[in-house]
Amino acid sequence: MKRRSPCPVSCTLDLVGDKWTLLIVRDLFSGKTSYKELLNSPEGIATNILSERLRRLCDHGLVEKTGQGRETLYRLTERGRSLLPVLEAVARWGLEQLQDTRAYIQIQRDL
Amino acid sequence: MKRRSPCPVSCTLDLVGDKWTLLIVRDLFSGKTSYKELLNSPEGIATNILSERLRRLCDHGLVEKTGQGRETLYRLTERGRSLLPVLEAVARWGLEQLQDTRAYIQIQRDL
Repeated sequence: MKRRSPCPVSCTLDLVGDKWTLLIVRDLFSGKTSYKELLNSPEGIATNILSERLRRLCDHGLVEKTGQGRETLYRLTERGRSLLPVLEAVARWGLEQLQDTRAYIQIQRDL
Repeated sequence: MKRRSPCPVSCTLDLVGDKWTLLIVRDLFSGKTSYKELLNSPEGIATNILSERLRRLCDHGLVEKTGQGRETLYRLTERGRSLLPVLEAVARWGLEQLQDTRAYIQIQRDL
């Protein structure tokens, strides 16, 4: 992946700077492990976006994939779990600054 | 703006979940105030993206625009400055997890 600059903000956004990746990370933190569960998020992610983002997260060592076919499971790696402070900062900002948001998806900090 | 769900992560990403918005916020935190300065970021933002994102940030009360023409200045509002923990979490993750990143842009925490 070509970097835009050596700035850590820019490089992190190259990886997770879009509307969907952190939602998949959120769902994995909530204990979801199957493609079907991830597809059933309230935001209605499209299959091609979910597949592409999962592939990218696996390629960068943030998610690991085990099993095959219907048995395929996705789990955050230790590197993926290190995104928790980013996820929490984003969630906290939303709760504090955006009206009518509510944290109804439980993050499992000890996943 | 139509929300995808009431989740604060989703709603925050609806607003700043892209590759460019937090870089503009970073630059405003570094003390840049003019369109030209913002355009000259190392990442090479395109004029149409910069204009659209600044408009959106202003529309949502995160940035305020003063002056006209060449005198136009952009500044983070208090609400915009409340994004500092998000920006810092993103920067910290990049510094810790992504090779060869360096924080060469100084954030002015007391902006």
